[in-house]
Amino acid sequence: MKEVKCLDHGYVRYLEHWGSDSIVCQRARMSNDLDNAEKSIEDDEKLIDYLYRNAHTSPLEMAGITVEMKLPIFVARQLVRHRTASINEVSARYVELPEEFYIPDDFHVASPSVKQGRTDTASPESFRLKQLYRSTISNVFDVYSDALSSGLSKEEARIILPVATYTRWAWSMDMNNLLKFLSLRCESHAQYEIRVFAEAVLEVVKPLFPSIIKAWERHGRNPIKLTKAEAEMFISFLDGKEVSKIDDRSYRILKEKLGITN
Amino acid sequence: MKEVKCLDHGYVRYLEHWGSDSIVCQRARMSNDLDNAEKSIEDDEKLIDYLYRNAHTSPLEMAGITVEMKLPIFVARQLVRHRTASINEVSARYVELPEEFYIPDDFHVASPSVKQGRTDTASPESFRLKQLYRSTISNVFDVYSDALSSGLSKEEARIILPVATYTRWAWSMDMNNLLKFLSLRCESHAQYEIRVFAEAVLEVVKPLFPSIIKAWERHGRNPIKLTKAEAEMFISFLDGKEVSKIDDRSYRILKEKLGITN
Amino acid sequence: MKEVKCLDHGYVRYLEHWGSDSIVCQRARMSNDLDNAEKSIEDDEKLIDYLYRNAHTSPLEMAGITVEMKLPIFVARQLVRHRTASINEVSARYVELPEEFYIPDDFHVASPSVKQGRTDTASPESFRLKQLYRSTISNVFDVYSDALSSGLSKEEARIILPVATYTRWAWSMDMNNLLKFLSLRCESHAQYEIRVFAEAVLEVVKPLFPSIIKAWERHGRNPIKLTKAEAEMFISFLDGKEVSKIDDRSYRILKEKLGITN
Amino acid sequence: MKEVKCLDHGYVRYLEHWGSDSIVCQRARMSNDLDNAEKSIEDDEKLIDYLYRNAHTSPLEMAGITVEMKLPIFVARQLVRHRTASINEVSARYVELPEEFYIPDDFHVASPSVKQGRTDTASPESFRLKQLYRSTISNVFDVYSDALSSGLSKEEARIILPVATYTRWAWSMDMNNLLKFLSLRCESHAQYEIRVFAEAVLEVVKPLFPSIIKAWERHGRNPIKLTKAEAEMFISFLDGKEVSKIDDRSYRILKEKLGITN
Repeated sequence: MKEVKCLDHGYVRYLEHWGSDSIVCQRARMSNDLDNAEKSIEDDEKLIDYLYRNAHTSPLEMAGITVEMKLPIFVARQLVRHRTASINEVSARYVELPEEFYIPDDFHVASPSVKQGRTDTASPESFRLKQLYRSTISNVFDVYSDALSSGLSKEEARIILPVATYTRWAWSMDMNNLLKFLSLRCESHAQYEIRVFAEAVLEVVKPLFPSIIKAWERHGRNPIKLTKAEAEMFISFLDGKEVSKIDDRSYRILKEKLGITN
Repeated sequence: MKEVKCLDHGYVRYLEHWGSDSIVCQRARMSNDLDNAEKSIEDDEKLIDYLYRNAHTSPLEMAGITVEMKLPIFVARQLVRHRTASINEVSARYVELPEEFYIPDDFHVASPSVKQGRTDTASPESFRLKQLYRSTISNVFDVYSDALSSGLSKEEARIILPVATYTRWAWSMDMNNLLKFLSLRCESHAQYEIRVFAEAVLEVVKPLFPSIIKAWERHGRNPIKLTKAEAEMFISFLDGKEVSKIDDRSYRILKEKLGITN
Repeated sequence: MKEVKCLDHGYVRYLEHWGSDSIVCQRARMSNDLDNAEKSIEDDEKLIDYLYRNAHTSPLEMAGITVEMKLPIFVARQLVRHRTASINEVSARYVELPEEFYIPDDFHVASPSVKQGRTDTASPESFRLKQLYRSTISNVFDVYSDALSSGLSKEEARIILPVATYTRWAWSMDMNNLLKFLSLRCESHAQYEIRVFAEAVLEVVKPLFPSIIKAWERHGRNPIKLTKAEAEMFISFLDGKEVSKIDDRSYRILKEKLGITN
Repeated sequence: MKEVKCLDHGYVRYLEHWGSDSIVCQRARMSNDLDNAEKSIEDDEKLIDYLYRNAHTSPLEMAGITVEMKLPIFVARQLVRHRTASINEVSARYVELPEEFYIPDDFHVASPSVKQGRTDTASPESFRLKQLYRSTISNVFDVYSDALSSGLSKEEARIILPVATYTRWAWSMDMNNLLKFLSLRCESHAQYEIRVFAEAVLEVVKPLFPSIIKAWERHGRNPIKLTKAEAEMFISFLDGKEVSKIDDRSYRILKEKLGITN
């Protein structure tokens, strides 16, 4: 059973999948009634690339996957916002959560930009704070244990647990919505910890649906969307014509979009 | 490959399924972390009955099915309103639809009630009208063929086709939403033709998920929902107490609900 | 601006609504093309009762409401499972959360039943544990402040915060899905704290959609769903006939369902 | 009441809306808790442009619109595939549909490409076929009338009606999903007739949410999505560097994407 380790105690573990590259193609060919006839695009990989590139995404809903994840609650809170997922989570109303919580390898310095979370620079206080977080959360779990052994209901006792606590769930999604999830959560603005889980989902899914993932990697991963003005600039360039100007703010946004930092 | 014939030219045909009674139970047990421990409800059938009866429906989303259906457009128009389905349909923009259309065994007399469609009484005009419908629609298909052989685009030519024309699609749903679909469409107020397809879906699904369907048949098929006042009446009766009164309109609605016609 | 206080620091606050009892009726009447003609059910309240009783719920999607809620994270985690809601939440990646956390008036003794959370009995340890929870969480917030003033990124610093911490969001739902939410969350098996918020939503919504809420209170709040066998028992009773037997387990379930405890 | 005529008998008519550019911004600012403080992006129009450009779309769900549409059934069949819409449609089970059907101004020659529907060239047979379609459908409506006046149930009689017949519905969507709908249906590969309705929806929505629509027109209408290789080519060009090569097939796809036809 394929399992990808995530962070300090988490994982994404394969449970089940349905459909395949080939089944997605069969369903797509039905729309053109080509399933019993010559195929307009014979090669499955090319057909999937064509479908995905042109936003014909409904055949992708004919395949999907279920994985088990063990993940910190604050990551689960972000993941659950993808509303097309089906989820069965361990309930802390009924289950005592084990003392497993996430502490990053390093804490990082805040980004000066309001739009960003952290920088890549480890905090000079990282070591001290990691110790402090660890001991504080350990103490929280002692209080939790005390409450439970005093006969308190689990659903009340757990309110003290930090969002760093690991939870566990089965998570199921069709491939159309899974690609949307990957596009948003493998992206550099997503919080590091959810990116780790998104990349792990990708690793589990990739060998099962190689052509779908290839199409996504080509067209859906970090897509650069051009505005009309930007596209016209690119067209002029490709045509070898004089390049139409765009204003300074637009130019800055374009360079940002393309990841040009100078 | 399991296939159930429907109406004069239609069918529901098994394509694929995922999950099972047992997998649904595994996912449900995870919520109580009982998957590695003693189980509170050991028997899968009893657990599913318990889950369904108490509206713990999320584990049912961990299983699902894909079927192919061939069905008249007017039925497809009702079915597509179940928005949790994933659908890939033959597109008449690209495909010439074959001359296959639905004519009922008998046409029926309209119901006098505005809330109902047809009565169970065959129309005295049924034979004449069936002939007339058949020849008229045949003529429509001749015009359609004429347009196509005159080089017209398929997407324009098809606008003349009647909603009795058969279309074909792959249709996929998880079991939680499929049970909701069955509850609404196996019900006596649903139009006869969609009921035929709902019952066919049921026939395909039943052997794959016997415990889930058993729970649905017990609690979800034609459920009688009591209001508080009605429940109190029933309680008094079970308690052997004097029965609390409900007003005449309420009593009429209750009898209607329970299918008491006198 | 209507606001209902919830728990120790929370609230549900009206922001906006659209549609009305009367607009829902207009949309429903369109289905029968009665909007320009005599109405089959003239009275809006009766029409809504009829629609809701008979599961004609799509007109209810033509109305909805947006509220602001301030609520503990563990309650937010339950609420977010209602996937038809639209939500905008304060992000602890970018915002320092104030030191506001939930401590219940009393902690309660765990229920001996695995299916239940707490009993109604305050724990003899309640006073001691409330003090302990309060001081422990206070300490957690001190560590959080320390981390932030040490220049740590907010998105990392917040992982120590307990699920008792208050968050804040705008939450929007159409009335069809809102009634489903109320049915599940005003119910006695829902955790007390989410019931408080569901009842507060109900209080905000009720004066805006009085007929819709009246129909829900009659048919959708704590509905008793009878199985076929149970319904037949009730029918026999109403008919004054000898009552058909059901087996002991079924009888126990029926009494449980009806809230008969002896 | 704003109404936009569509095709020969159809329309899109404003019924109700909720939210606004400004309310969307308020909800978005809550995520950064900036609603009571200085705003990072003060200007609503710039904030909406930023949100939409960066796929922060959840605040757009805090606004929406309901319109009435009168549209041919075959267009309704495409529109209903946008599953996030709430819809109340005239039911031909209960209502006699008036003799109103769509005949295009001109029928067009089929496209030789399997991926396309029609060409822009009017068929030389257009005049003859329009006459033939008109008279054939007229005859169909006569048969429909005959069936109804013979006492047939409406739900059976209507099966003969062509998909060109006009139906009518109330259609409601939040702005996030409405923009997705517009992106797909204002696009040149969408069938002409649905594009007419999408453009009419756009015309109704635009004055109500000017900044949202402006952002969509800039970034969401006909977006050109570059693959990594294409983006690198563009970057090199902007940097004034030697341009990295892409293979011939990729170059053809890029030109297609950019609408360069030579």
